[in-house]
Amino acid sequence: MQKDRPVILITNDDGINAPGIRALVESVRELGQIIVVAPDSPQSGMGHAITIGDPLRLDKVEVFEGVDSWQCSGTPADCVKLARDKILHRKPDLCLSGINHGANHSINVIYSGTMSAAMEAAIEGVPSIGFSLLDFKYDADFNVAKTIAFELATRMLAKPMPEHILLNVNVPRLQAAEFKGMKICRQAYSKWAEEFDHRIDPRGKDYYWMTGKFINMDELPGTDVDALKEGYASIVPIKIDFTDYKMKEWMESEWKDFV
Amino acid sequence: MQKDRPVILITNDDGINAPGIRALVESVRELGQIIVVAPDSPQSGMGHAITIGDPLRLDKVEVFEGVDSWQCSGTPADCVKLARDKILHRKPDLCLSGINHGANHSINVIYSGTMSAAMEAAIEGVPSIGFSLLDFKYDADFNVAKTIAFELATRMLAKPMPEHILLNVNVPRLQAAEFKGMKICRQAYSKWAEEFDHRIDPRGKDYYWMTGKFINMDELPGTDVDALKEGYASIVPIKIDFTDYKMKEWMESEWKDFV
Repeated sequence: MQKDRPVILITNDDGINAPGIRALVESVRELGQIIVVAPDSPQSGMGHAITIGDPLRLDKVEVFEGVDSWQCSGTPADCVKLARDKILHRKPDLCLSGINHGANHSINVIYSGTMSAAMEAAIEGVPSIGFSLLDFKYDADFNVAKTIAFELATRMLAKPMPEHILLNVNVPRLQAAEFKGMKICRQAYSKWAEEFDHRIDPRGKDYYWMTGKFINMDELPGTDVDALKEGYASIVPIKIDFTDYKMKEWMESEWKDFV
Repeated sequence: MQKDRPVILITNDDGINAPGIRALVESVRELGQIIVVAPDSPQSGMGHAITIGDPLRLDKVEVFEGVDSWQCSGTPADCVKLARDKILHRKPDLCLSGINHGANHSINVIYSGTMSAAMEAAIEGVPSIGFSLLDFKYDADFNVAKTIAFELATRMLAKPMPEHILLNVNVPRLQAAEFKGMKICRQAYSKWAEEFDHRIDPRGKDYYWMTGKFINMDELPGTDVDALKEGYASIVPIKIDFTDYKMKEWMESEWKDFV
């Protein structure tokens, strides 16, 4: 480790060979000493899974020129844990996850491996950001997202922030000329309406593919979904305390006979 | 479906053959029509993982006498999604997950498959509870936890509750005589200090086992960890909106030049 430069840990959930993580490394490499620890294969939809019943592999690889990089057989959350304990032997100064190929706005934060890595870092007290671009294509244009990553990382390294900060950043699929700027938002209330595609395998046994339609059920202003629709990048600060304090109050008054 | 009885969906993350799910089925079976859809193998530490790149299997099984039961090859969140779309063809009236073998208090809510199933139901607007007993043993005594499950399920079925209610219930390892009662709590701020046990496999390659020590860093009163230590069962209401509104305000004032 070089003592004078901030240490920036980069990970993702699309795997170390995805174009999105390369874009992220390129966007911030001049801001500090970059360390990449990322899954060796795509991990989308892994939520906050961790690997407790299987051994983990961690191998040094040459993927990004001049950047120390490791690929890991585990989940994004595993990568952050392993990076701290086995590679850095200290907390990084910043953790960046992504750039994810596809949206992680609204309820998707719960299912997202990209966000689980950022959340794992925040639990440790490391400021962290998960980045997603609303474009699933392998050859998506990451230019706007790269500019945002550079600006946010610069800002978070320059000035101490409240502890356990964790940002969920989503970037619309727009060219720089059409891009409107950034907006601080709240998480939209939404869900996936799943439909399972039922099929029969060659041995006559049933199986199902999960498919789904995204439904935004949030009519009130200020959501990430709205900001993205309007051409802004959304920034949602995320908590690691999931307690519903309003509900807690309601229960304390309604359930008095009981607790 | 019998029209006059509430439909109670039961799932877990320890797998359909775990004693904990049997205890849960027994505790509430007189309260409604029970449907069990649970993983065919243990899924601990799966967080809110969903299965999007692999086909899912769903097979009717005879595990609980007189209760329609299915085992699924997917995660706890997959089970809830499949139950609604392919078995019930409607929302259940209540979803119960567990009883987990081991604690899911404090930060563990993030890593817990048990809680992810309950959260998946809450996203759908189904009142749900995740139950965990602070005892990893296969032959753990579920009696206190069963009484709590019965009482909470009865209460939630009897009176309409605010939407998207989701409770994280943890039960101490105590006999009924020592058990102090229930407490509504907030999630303790805590973390896992991981240490990876480094080994060399027979082919000379490195591998790691994740091990960890739980650290409670929360000194303030009212947490689930405290209640459990004092001999109470903890009930934490959980939100599905992860927005940090305090941080949002802070950013809106501090980052005025930027967003």
